[in-house]
Amino acid sequence: MSVAHHATPPRRAPMAADHAADAVDRLADEPVDHRFKALPPDAQGLTVGELASARRDLFTGGFTTPVLALSAESLEHNLALLETYAERHGLAFAPHGKTSMSPQLFARQLERGAWGITAAVPHQVRVYRAYGISRIFLANEVVDAAALRWIAGELDADPGFRLVVYVDSVRGVELMDEALRGVSRPLDVVVELGAGDGARTGVRTEAGCAAVADAVAAAESLRLVGVAGYEGEVPRADGDSVRAWLRRLVALAAAFDAEGRFADTGEIVVSAGGSAWFDAVADVFATIPALSAPVLKLLRSGAYVSHDDGHYRHLTPFNRVPAEGSLQPAFRLWAQVVSRPSPEQAFLNAGKRDAAYDLDLPEAQAVRDARTGAVRPADGITVTGLSDQHAWVRTDAGAELEVGDWVGMGLSHPCTSFDKWQLIPVVEQDGTVTDFIRTFF
Amino acid sequence: MSVAHHATPPRRAPMAADHAADAVDRLADEPVDHRFKALPPDAQGLTVGELASARRDLFTGGFTTPVLALSAESLEHNLALLETYAERHGLAFAPHGKTSMSPQLFARQLERGAWGITAAVPHQVRVYRAYGISRIFLANEVVDAAALRWIAGELDADPGFRLVVYVDSVRGVELMDEALRGVSRPLDVVVELGAGDGARTGVRTEAGCAAVADAVAAAESLRLVGVAGYEGEVPRADGDSVRAWLRRLVALAAAFDAEGRFADTGEIVVSAGGSAWFDAVADVFATIPALSAPVLKLLRSGAYVSHDDGHYRHLTPFNRVPAEGSLQPAFRLWAQVVSRPSPEQAFLNAGKRDAAYDLDLPEAQAVRDARTGAVRPADGITVTGLSDQHAWVRTDAGAELEVGDWVGMGLSHPCTSFDKWQLIPVVEQDGTVTDFIRTFF
Repeated sequence: MSVAHHATPPRRAPMAADHAADAVDRLADEPVDHRFKALPPDAQGLTVGELASARRDLFTGGFTTPVLALSAESLEHNLALLETYAERHGLAFAPHGKTSMSPQLFARQLERGAWGITAAVPHQVRVYRAYGISRIFLANEVVDAAALRWIAGELDADPGFRLVVYVDSVRGVELMDEALRGVSRPLDVVVELGAGDGARTGVRTEAGCAAVADAVAAAESLRLVGVAGYEGEVPRADGDSVRAWLRRLVALAAAFDAEGRFADTGEIVVSAGGSAWFDAVADVFATIPALSAPVLKLLRSGAYVSHDDGHYRHLTPFNRVPAEGSLQPAFRLWAQVVSRPSPEQAFLNAGKRDAAYDLDLPEAQAVRDARTGAVRPADGITVTGLSDQHAWVRTDAGAELEVGDWVGMGLSHPCTSFDKWQLIPVVEQDGTVTDFIRTFF
Repeated sequence: MSVAHHATPPRRAPMAADHAADAVDRLADEPVDHRFKALPPDAQGLTVGELASARRDLFTGGFTTPVLALSAESLEHNLALLETYAERHGLAFAPHGKTSMSPQLFARQLERGAWGITAAVPHQVRVYRAYGISRIFLANEVVDAAALRWIAGELDADPGFRLVVYVDSVRGVELMDEALRGVSRPLDVVVELGAGDGARTGVRTEAGCAAVADAVAAAESLRLVGVAGYEGEVPRADGDSVRAWLRRLVALAAAFDAEGRFADTGEIVVSAGGSAWFDAVADVFATIPALSAPVLKLLRSGAYVSHDDGHYRHLTPFNRVPAEGSLQPAFRLWAQVVSRPSPEQAFLNAGKRDAAYDLDLPEAQAVRDARTGAVRPADGITVTGLSDQHAWVRTDAGAELEVGDWVGMGLSHPCTSFDKWQLIPVVEQDGTVTDFIRTFF
């Protein structure tokens, strides 16, 4: 602790973005075929890039229902908003990639200043590496020997690859060290502080954190670079309890630093921040004191990229800080009325295979009339359930809805919406499909 | 109605099986890469077929967690059992392909005497056609013009292609006829009888069915070939109410036949049968009287192929008719303990991205000890929740479970288990991985 530094400003990762761009560009060469739902059958044989260049209309261009559309404008707006937000608050940003698992979106996040991309499991790291991502924050424990041996190979082969992984147990540290033995440079780890009793992963007490840190210090193949956790799992979370936990996390970083535990690293990592409490993270991380090395204050929010019309619409911190902007829901799932068996019931051809169903049901928002092509609000139309391949719809007296009409729905929970689709049309306000987002779940 | 025929025995579809086999064989040429979760990272660059030939061990062969395993023996057992069941009861069989969306399993179902494969949406028909399936029962209404134009193209191009689609509204018939106009031969349709008031798709009354059949008769591009429905949606279903509805379906077929509505077809289709009531279907379909043409009694059960350890374990008709056999759950999801933050809690690295979560949570069944490799029952270990990428586990006092151990879990609902995985190892009893099942959701 010879020299005290203040937090450095967020660093951009131009090399990562450049590398990713090459592999990402090649996604446009994939053929349009039966693997991808909703794509126009008459586009079979074109490449994805050729279909994007054709700028077809979502409604009249031969797309089949159900089709999930991602708003080009809302996507751009959301990407820009969190870039600005992170910059304004002096935070580095590693958006959680598990949300979209889309290398194209990762590239855009990196172009907009992201430090790197966050992952939840080693398989996701494999996808990221296939698209040239050079900085990855793996916000989870990894004790899988086969995965760790692969990670060791990546570290050996690419000096520019930076990976940071959670640890939360002495046993886990032992398993990692065993699997990584012989790696040319140590793997960077952060001790995960649990969010409270009964919460998810993470060490429950500061004494426990110190014991894990001791184990890391004794493990040749690991290097302790910081602390991290997930405030979203604080039991009965509110502004006070979340901030209290974040202060514990910051105090843990300061205590570890005072104990000389970060002597081996030129940069200390302190990370938190999902999509519900990044305002609290910004507040508390602003109070991180000067430590013995620059501090990388790493925010990990991922759901912002598409935002939603349910869970995160209610939870987004922008509801509390409207002066800082607001996210726009970017998804609309269009499905078709295939059956209208009674005046109160209608059925759409989208179900659990097409829409998130873990937190809230889809919200009927718009109807495109099959006879006129006009789009009107979905007044009196409510999705009441999902079968595997059907949406159950209740229609109030007087609600207009006919077999053949398309119903546009908002979704809740981006993570379980993206993962139902391997290729998602990006659609401009006027209905023109300009791009396709490939996902790898 | 000049000549009365009795039901013909189920027909096999050798041509379909042959065609499918060629395309299915080529799936083995796909490269092992980042697209497929859980595959050994050190197998990158091999083909799927080469990896299968290597006969690696699931636990020690470099597979990463979480990994979903499909039991080779249980799969074979289940495929054989429903073949036998359908034959014994004089039923033709079009197993619902939406369950697995796996052309390899479709090929095995066809080899075992299936008449064809059932689909829920046109996209699934596209997948089936890409793998040479020549007889498809589309158990849903289709009014999507783009999809219907593609269907018309398939009918025009391949005289051997047989597709049967539901109709349940006059408006739907009009939309179909409009989209299909000019097709070289009519599309075969069956009127769907709804399973009751408040049930899913399907015409609610016999008078309504007749009106839809009249519309079909007036539509040049459609041909009425039968009636169908889904007894699984009978409100408050029990043996009596399901049989009562099935008798209505059979009576509808007989009434339509008596009215001469099937004069254009050489075969009358009567179809029902999910995975919960095929015993009732067998009973009631045995009572179908002689009609003016041979009757194709078509069963559509799909979940049997993997069966499960939850929903269908409770619902399977074999619980009522044990003398006819019993299905075996074929899935086991192996995940690893990554965190053990308290004596009562453990966390596995599998979540909503890996396991079905719509009907029941996974059931912990076995633990593979990381230190010894021994497998023991998962006594005192309960999955209590799923995050996107974590399973929450409660451990009773005395339950042995350590970071690094693998936990083997049974799943509930095959349809939402298969769809989380694009390539699934098929594993023999001794742990040898002998094949990989590719899915197309």
